[in-house]
Amino acid sequence: MNTKVYFTPGPSELYPTVPVHMHTAMEDKIGSISHRSKQFQEIYAKAESGLRELLQLPDEYEVFFVASATEIWERAIQNNVQRESFHLVNGSFSKRFYETAAELGRETRQHEAPFGQGFDVQRISVPSSAELIALIQNETSSGACMPVDEINQFREKAAADALIYVDAVSSLPYPAFDFAKVDSVYFSVQKCFGLPAGLGVWLVNDRCMAKARSMQESGTSIGSYHTLPALLEKALASQTVETPNVLNIYLLGKVLEDMNRKGVETIRSETEAKATQIYTYLERSAVFSPAVENPKHRSKTTIVANSTISSAEVNKQLAAFDMQVGSGYGKYKEAQIRIANFPTHSPEQVEKLVSKLEELFG
Amino acid sequence: MNTKVYFTPGPSELYPTVPVHMHTAMEDKIGSISHRSKQFQEIYAKAESGLRELLQLPDEYEVFFVASATEIWERAIQNNVQRESFHLVNGSFSKRFYETAAELGRETRQHEAPFGQGFDVQRISVPSSAELIALIQNETSSGACMPVDEINQFREKAAADALIYVDAVSSLPYPAFDFAKVDSVYFSVQKCFGLPAGLGVWLVNDRCMAKARSMQESGTSIGSYHTLPALLEKALASQTVETPNVLNIYLLGKVLEDMNRKGVETIRSETEAKATQIYTYLERSAVFSPAVENPKHRSKTTIVANSTISSAEVNKQLAAFDMQVGSGYGKYKEAQIRIANFPTHSPEQVEKLVSKLEELFG
Repeated sequence: MNTKVYFTPGPSELYPTVPVHMHTAMEDKIGSISHRSKQFQEIYAKAESGLRELLQLPDEYEVFFVASATEIWERAIQNNVQRESFHLVNGSFSKRFYETAAELGRETRQHEAPFGQGFDVQRISVPSSAELIALIQNETSSGACMPVDEINQFREKAAADALIYVDAVSSLPYPAFDFAKVDSVYFSVQKCFGLPAGLGVWLVNDRCMAKARSMQESGTSIGSYHTLPALLEKALASQTVETPNVLNIYLLGKVLEDMNRKGVETIRSETEAKATQIYTYLERSAVFSPAVENPKHRSKTTIVANSTISSAEVNKQLAAFDMQVGSGYGKYKEAQIRIANFPTHSPEQVEKLVSKLEELFG
Repeated sequence: MNTKVYFTPGPSELYPTVPVHMHTAMEDKIGSISHRSKQFQEIYAKAESGLRELLQLPDEYEVFFVASATEIWERAIQNNVQRESFHLVNGSFSKRFYETAAELGRETRQHEAPFGQGFDVQRISVPSSAELIALIQNETSSGACMPVDEINQFREKAAADALIYVDAVSSLPYPAFDFAKVDSVYFSVQKCFGLPAGLGVWLVNDRCMAKARSMQESGTSIGSYHTLPALLEKALASQTVETPNVLNIYLLGKVLEDMNRKGVETIRSETEAKATQIYTYLERSAVFSPAVENPKHRSKTTIVANSTISSAEVNKQLAAFDMQVGSGYGKYKEAQIRIANFPTHSPEQVEKLVSKLEELFG
C-alpha cells in the first residue's frame, strides 16, 4: 500500500474519487464493453456534457478525445496549418509545439521569452501570414503562466482568419477562458483532472473545423484517422474513430460529475487560496524562492521554485513523511522543484506540505 | 455487479487476473508515478521483456507502445513508405489500412479477396515497386485468417528491400510467427491480451528502422513525436515520448507474467481445442454455419458464423444466461455473429456458451 501524496506536476495524485470509480468500472466490466455499443455512447456523452458544463463551453466548440496533448500538437499542425504557424515559446513544452510544426514541414516562427518568464504581450507583433498562433497558458516546465486577459489580446493582433490555440495542459479547469477570443484549447487528463495518463482532450471551434475542411478540399493531406472531419463524424455519434481508452473516458465522466457537484468556482477559489499559501511560504523560505519573478505570470497550478538544495535531497527528506514534489524540468532538474497544485490536492494536504517544507528546510 | 461473460471480439472479457492487478495498481498508486521515473522504467522493461519471452521475439526487433493499432497504420505509412504500398484486402480492417495509405498521399495497390475468404497466395504477385506489403493474419471483421506458412511465402514474392507488415491485432499470441520472414507485426491489447483498450503494440525489425532513417535523411517528413527514430530513442531508456497509458503498460506486464507462467504452448493448444469445439458446433448447428468456407482460413481467435437468426436476437436470448457474443461487422451486423476465442476465455466458459447456443437455437 502506497500512502505517499504526489505533488508531482502530472502524472500526479489521482482525484480522490478515482479509486472508487475504478472499482465500480471493474465491477461493471467497463473494460469489456464494445466501443460501438449504446453503453459506450452514454459514457462518451456523459464525459462530453460534464466537460461542457464545467468549462461553460459554447456550442460552436467540439470536444475530441485523442491519446495525449503531444498528439494534439501534431494534429493541430496537420489540420490547421497549410504553410505557417507562430509560437510563443518560454519553456520546453511550448518549444516542443514549435518544433513539431517544423518536423511536419511547415514554416514556423517563434517569439521567445526566457525560461521562467511570462511575455510582454504589448510588445509582441504577430506575423500576418501566421495561420495558427500557439499560446501557452501554463508552461508546465517553468511554472510561467499567461493570464486570460493577456490571451484575449491576441485576436486583435492576428490576421482575421488566424486560429488561436491555447495550451492549458496543466491548468484547466482553473483558467476561466473567454472561448470567443480563442479557437482551440487542449489539455491532458493526468494533470488537473486527476486521472491516470493516456487521454488528451482537444476543444476546437467551427473556425478550426472550417480550416481543416478547406485544407482537405484543396488536396492537402490532413492525416488519416484523426483528421478533424473524421473526429467530428464519430463524435456526433458519441464515438471515436479507433478503439479508445474507454476506461479513462469513463473515469473522466465520473470525475467531472464530482467536480461539477463541487462547482468550478469553488475549485478555482480553492486553487487560488492554496497557491497563495505555497507562494507565501516560498517568498519567506530560506532555501526556496519563486522561480517566476513577476507575480502576474506565476502559475497557480504548477508552482516552480528555485532551490538551494537539490530536488533529489528535498524529495529524499519529504519521503520520510510520505510526500513527493516534482523535480525541475530538463537542465533545472536539481536546481528547481515543481509543486502541483491541482484540484485533487486538498487545502489540508497543501498545508501539511508547506509546514513540512518549512520545518525541514526553513 | 456485471457478471456477464463477453465473447465479443474486442474489447472483450478481461484476462481473469486483471481486476486484481488493477486493485494492486490503485493501492500502489501506479496512476500517480512519473513517466520519467525509475519505477516507470521498470514497469516498461517488464512489459517489454514479458512480450519478448512470450513471442520469442528476436533481438533485431524493437517493441513500441503507441495508442492503438489504428495509429500504427498511419505511422507505418509515414515511416516506411516513400511512394507505394501494396495491401492484401479481404475485410474492413485490411481495407482501412489500404485507405490510410491513400489518405496520406501514397500510391497504393490492393489485391482483394471477397469478405470472408482467405487468399490464394500462390496466385498473388507482388508489385516490385511496393515498399510495404500489408498482410492480414487475422481479419477481425470477417473471421478469415492467413496461416503462418502462407505469410512466409511473401519474402520470396516481394522486392528485396520491401517490408512485410502483418496485422495480428486480434490473434497474437496465437500465431507462432517466423519473425525472420516478416518485418513488422502489430496488435492491440484489448483483444487476445485481455486488457482494457488504449494501447497498440508495434513490433519492428532493424529493416523498418533503417528505412525510416533513410526517408528522414532524404528530407521526407516521417511525422513528429511518433517517428520510428523518436520511438526508439525513448524505448532504449524504457520510456515513451509522450506521457503514455501507464496503467495499461503496467497491466500488460502483469498479464504477460501470468501468460508466461502458463506458457505460450499451452495457450496455443487451448486456443485450438476451444476453436475446434466452437467450429464443430457451428458445422452441426441448424441456425449457424462457419462464415469462412475453407477450414484452413478459419480464424482460431475470432470465429464468425452466418446466422439465420439476427445477432440481436441471439444476444437477447444469451443475455438471460449472462453471455454475449459479437454481432457481425458492418453490413453483416445482423446476419452474422462473431465469437471471440481469446486466452481469457476458459474451456469451461466456451463449453457453456456452445451448450447454451445449442440448447437455445439448435
